[in-house]
Order: sequence, then structure tokens, then C-alpha cells
Amino acid sequence: MKTKPTLAVVGATGAVGTVMLDILTNREDVWGEIRLIASARSAGKQLMVRGRLETVIELTTESFEDVDVAMFDVPDEVSAIWAPIAASKGAIAVDNSGAFRMDPEVPLVVPEVNADQVKNRPKGIISNPNCTTLSMIVVIGALHQKYGVEELVVSSYQAASGAGQSGIDSLREQMQLVAGTEVGSVAGDHKNVIKDHGPFPASLALNVIPWAGSLKEDGYTSEELKVRKESQKILGLPNLKVIATCVRVPVITTHSLTVVARFKNKIDIDAARDLLRKSPGVTVLDDPSNKVFPTPADVVGTDDTWVGRLRASMDDENTLTFFVCGDNLRKGAALNTAQIAEVVAKEFKF
Amino acid sequence: MKTKPTLAVVGATGAVGTVMLDILTNREDVWGEIRLIASARSAGKQLMVRGRLETVIELTTESFEDVDVAMFDVPDEVSAIWAPIAASKGAIAVDNSGAFRMDPEVPLVVPEVNADQVKNRPKGIISNPNCTTLSMIVVIGALHQKYGVEELVVSSYQAASGAGQSGIDSLREQMQLVAGTEVGSVAGDHKNVIKDHGPFPASLALNVIPWAGSLKEDGYTSEELKVRKESQKILGLPNLKVIATCVRVPVITTHSLTVVARFKNKIDIDAARDLLRKSPGVTVLDDPSNKVFPTPADVVGTDDTWVGRLRASMDDENTLTFFVCGDNLRKGAALNTAQIAEVVAKEFKF
Repeated sequence: MKTKPTLAVVGATGAVGTVMLDILTNREDVWGEIRLIASARSAGKQLMVRGRLETVIELTTESFEDVDVAMFDVPDEVSAIWAPIAASKGAIAVDNSGAFRMDPEVPLVVPEVNADQVKNRPKGIISNPNCTTLSMIVVIGALHQKYGVEELVVSSYQAASGAGQSGIDSLREQMQLVAGTEVGSVAGDHKNVIKDHGPFPASLALNVIPWAGSLKEDGYTSEELKVRKESQKILGLPNLKVIATCVRVPVITTHSLTVVARFKNKIDIDAARDLLRKSPGVTVLDDPSNKVFPTPADVVGTDDTWVGRLRASMDDENTLTFFVCGDNLRKGAALNTAQIAEVVAKEFKF
Repeated sequence: MKTKPTLAVVGATGAVGTVMLDILTNREDVWGEIRLIASARSAGKQLMVRGRLETVIELTTESFEDVDVAMFDVPDEVSAIWAPIAASKGAIAVDNSGAFRMDPEVPLVVPEVNADQVKNRPKGIISNPNCTTLSMIVVIGALHQKYGVEELVVSSYQAASGAGQSGIDSLREQMQLVAGTEVGSVAGDHKNVIKDHGPFPASLALNVIPWAGSLKEDGYTSEELKVRKESQKILGLPNLKVIATCVRVPVITTHSLTVVARFKNKIDIDAARDLLRKSPGVTVLDDPSNKVFPTPADVVGTDDTWVGRLRASMDDENTLTFFVCGDNLRKGAALNTAQIAEVVAKEFKF
């Protein structure tokens, strides 16, 4: 007899799927069956989850039979087709792709910020935000509750793994090509050593690239507009002013962002720091006199959003600035999806 | 008989001094004698400038005899003592250190922006701005002339060479340690491989560090306050609002910055781009439909400030944002010092 809901993990063999299996193994076990689903190419593979080997099955309409919650860690075009199919079979779909995030009938959920939105799902689909938005939004949400956010200026320092496994592989390969050379001291010498940029539009080792995603309106990239539109939707503030520049940096995993946030109310920087210390999902690491602050190297593999370098504006008492780091594969993707699914899991009684 | 002014280069053997000799060799030759000066330790070395080997002499009061212009590429504490000595011997001192930048009796000059200020030098000393300020200020200055800048939000992506030769050496060493490893995928694995951070407060290979300089008031670093106070002084706008976060990235040379700038007047983004195309010292590289934008790898070794990713704010018609790159050892240091000295050189008639 079934006592706990059945979970399907679609895209179990991908970069985010792999992290998901680790997360499902280590979090409180709210699931009955966990069914691993992937493309025909990966079907038959055996993967470890909760200490047991499970066999990956092929993504078909039948694979959703008796599934209560289906997570999707797959490309947009795969989610666009299969999340509605899962929902039509009675599963609640939690989608980590961009396919439904801006759909007004699909809630965009970060449990620490707007868990109540999971119920507003007329299509049976709940979306998980983009990794860059997720790397800062728990901190913004906590501050917003007290101070009322009105404007955000965001610059990102995004990791290679945001571009998938090929991003990681390409950066590792580029690192081996430039290490031990003098590359980076003379114009154009990157070109002589790094011939293949992988998924990036320029070499990434010993470089930074002010581009992530595809070109959208007014010269902004898709990634920059996601930060804007998803922040507006998650916070329920359609008129929130947001200006973002997304820059790729030679880091394997963990996105960092500088944020300047203007609020409706006056900010006391010590009170803001205390508020963040008490906020679920946030770790404050902010002791500038000892040069203590978060960096991606410290944050990778952890669940929280880490924040430091909190400073009040010298010009405007309603504005503060800070530096955040979040593991883009965990809170930025798999973890938040798992958290949403856990909120949904509580709805099931057997 | 002397027909051209005599130039002294103090700190000729350092990281910036080395670039300076290259710049003096390749620019229009406005100098008579070029005298190379360094600490006693380096005296006697022979260095190539203008195709000739010159012998480095020791820094003494006598070394400034008959010098018309003396450039200082030395630490703050050395400039603090020796620039006034050079001035007392009748030389005009052009100082690349931080010792005099905020002195109200010392002009802070960027020739494309405020060349007229070189004359206001009651102490006989002219200061060269910090490399981070210099990496953006030519672009800001050009836009300011037409639109009137009121507020800047700046996030930097600063190169290792901003911390001197030891910064370059440390990053190169760290790159060799992590290349070919899996470092960067698991929390704390940097620590097992990189034991020595060199001049940085954390490991820099496969990481970013939200810290440059020393701690100053209200949690800001010295580097962040330099961007603020130097921009205010160069533009002659003591009330300009500036909020900066300075972040070190694993790049050898060339600082990059994201800038959000609010102006008094409405911005037409195409007119702004055209204005920058016509501005001396600026190269516009901005074709997002072909993913064309500046990166440090392309800019290193060049003289201009490169700008791309120009976008109008979606919320405020007086605000625009862009990404700039500037070689921190050239325009950010040696080149701007040389340009100031060339403005001064025109004053001499023999």
C-alpha cells in the first residue's frame, strides 16, 4: 500500500539531475517510489539514489502512470512538450526549464519567498526560476518583507556550469591549455592557444565574457531579462525596476552577484544584517575587518545563499549594496526544485 | 644644447615602469634625455627605451638635477617623500601613486576629460588616478559632457596585475595547481590544492574575490572609495553619487567594469553610442546580434577604453548601462601618466 507520494525525476542523467539525486538522498525522505526518467539514449542506465541503484526508464506518456509529482530537469523544448503531458496524467509538474516561467497560469516559486504560490497552478505546472535569479532572490525577498524593494541593479559573475556539462568541460580544457603559459599578457594571445570556446562566445580561461544566453529586446540578453522579469514575478512586483548585466567568469560552479537595492524604507545596515542572519536559507559571512566574505570556492556544494560585503549607500539612506554567492546547480536549480516538490508533497494523504 | 625637456622615470624597473618604457618607445618622442631612476637595489641595471640601453641610476636628491618632468611609478610612501623633493628641484612631478590624489592642491588628471587641470598645480605635483577609475572614466567623461552625469553604480572585474607582479605570479602559479584537477566542484577543495594566496585574501584561480585594497569607512574598501572620490574629483562633481563594489577575477591584465549611469538629460542610446565612437581614447565594440563586445583577452596591450553592451534602462529614460574594459597597466597606469607628462611637455620652450 502506498504511504508516500511517487516522484518522477525527468532528466535524471543530466548535470542538474545528477545533483538532484544527491539532494534527494540527503534530504528528509518524503517520497515513496522515486522513478528516474530520461531520453531513450540513457534508458537502462543504473543510478544511485537514497543508497539504492535505480534503473532509468525512457520518457514516454506511460512513464507518468501513478506519478504524484514530476520534476523536469531538461531543456526548454522538452519541458514544453512533456510537463503538460505529465500534468494531464495527474502529476504535479515542477519544471526547472524556462518554458513556463512567465506563463501567468504557472506560479514561479522560491519556497523561502512565496511558498503560498504553489497552490495557484491551474495547469498543474509550477516553475523553478533561473539559476541567476535564484542566486540572489532569497536575500532580496527577506529584505523586501521588511523594507519594500523598489529597484535593483545587478551584475553577475556566473559560473561555467550554468552552461551545462559542456561549459564545465570547456573551461577545464581551456585551463589546461593556458596554465604554464604567458597567455593573458599580450593582446590576442588567447587566440593562439584556445581555438575552441565550447558553448561560450569567447575564451573563458583568464577572461570574463559579458554575455549569457541569447539576444533579446533592446540589446539585453535572455539571462538579463530573466533576472528582471522573474524577480518581478516572484516578488509580486510587476513594476520593480531591475537592470542586470550578466557576465560569465572562469569559475566551475557557484554564481556570484553584486546587488545594489533601493527600498521604500530607510535601511539600518546592522538591522538588515541581523534580519538576514535570521532568514531561512541565508548565511551571512560579513566581517570586513578580517577580510571575511563569501567566494564561490567556499560556497560550491552548499545549499544556502551566502551574503557579505553589506554596506549602506553613502548617498541614499534607502539603498544598500551587497555581494551574494549561490551554488547554481543546487539552490540555483536542483535544490529549489526539490524544495518546491516537498511543499507539494505535503498535500498528499494516503 | 637642450631642445626638448628632460624626463625622469622613477620606478623604471617595476611592473608599471616596464610598460612605461615600452610606451615611451612607441609614442611621439617629445623628450630629450630620459633618465631612469629606481631604488639602490636596481641601480646599474640596463633597460631598453627608444631603442637604446639606458643605465638605471639610484633615487637621490641629485638624480632630479636638470629634470623638467618626473614620473613616479612607485608605492604611495615613496611618492609621498620623493615627489615633493623632485618638485623642490624644479621638476613637475606626475605621480601614479595614491599619495596626493585627494590633495586639493594637486590636480587629478585624465587628459581626455580634464587636461585643463594640469595648470592648477601649486605644489608642482599632478596625480594620475587609480587604475579602476581610469578603466571607465574616459567613457563617463565623454557621456557627461553631453548628458550631465548624476549617479554611477559600478561593479568591477579586476585583473591580478592590479596587485602588482606578485599578483600575476600568484595567479599563474595557482592556475598550474588547479589545471587538470577537479577543483571547483566541491566545497573547500580549493583549500587542499592552493595553500598560498599570494597578495590576495583568498584563492583566485577558478574563483572571484569581492575585495581589493584595505578596509576603509562604512565597510567599503580603499579601491571602492577611490572609484567614488576620484570620479567626483576628475569630473568636478563633488556631489556625484557613486556606489562601487570591487571584485578581483582570475584575469592577468585588463580591468572590466559594469556601469549603470544616470544622467540629468534623457539618453538616446544610438546617439550615445555615436558620441562614444567619436570620443578620443574610446573604442566602441558593440554588435550584440553577432555577440560582439569587448573582453579582457582582446583588450590587453591596447591603449583605448573599450566599451560595449550599451543598453538603455527599461525603467528610466535618463539611465544607461554598459560594459568597459581597459588595460590596467596602460591606460590604467603608465599610459595616462605618459599622456599627462606630454601635456606638461608642451609648456617647455628651449
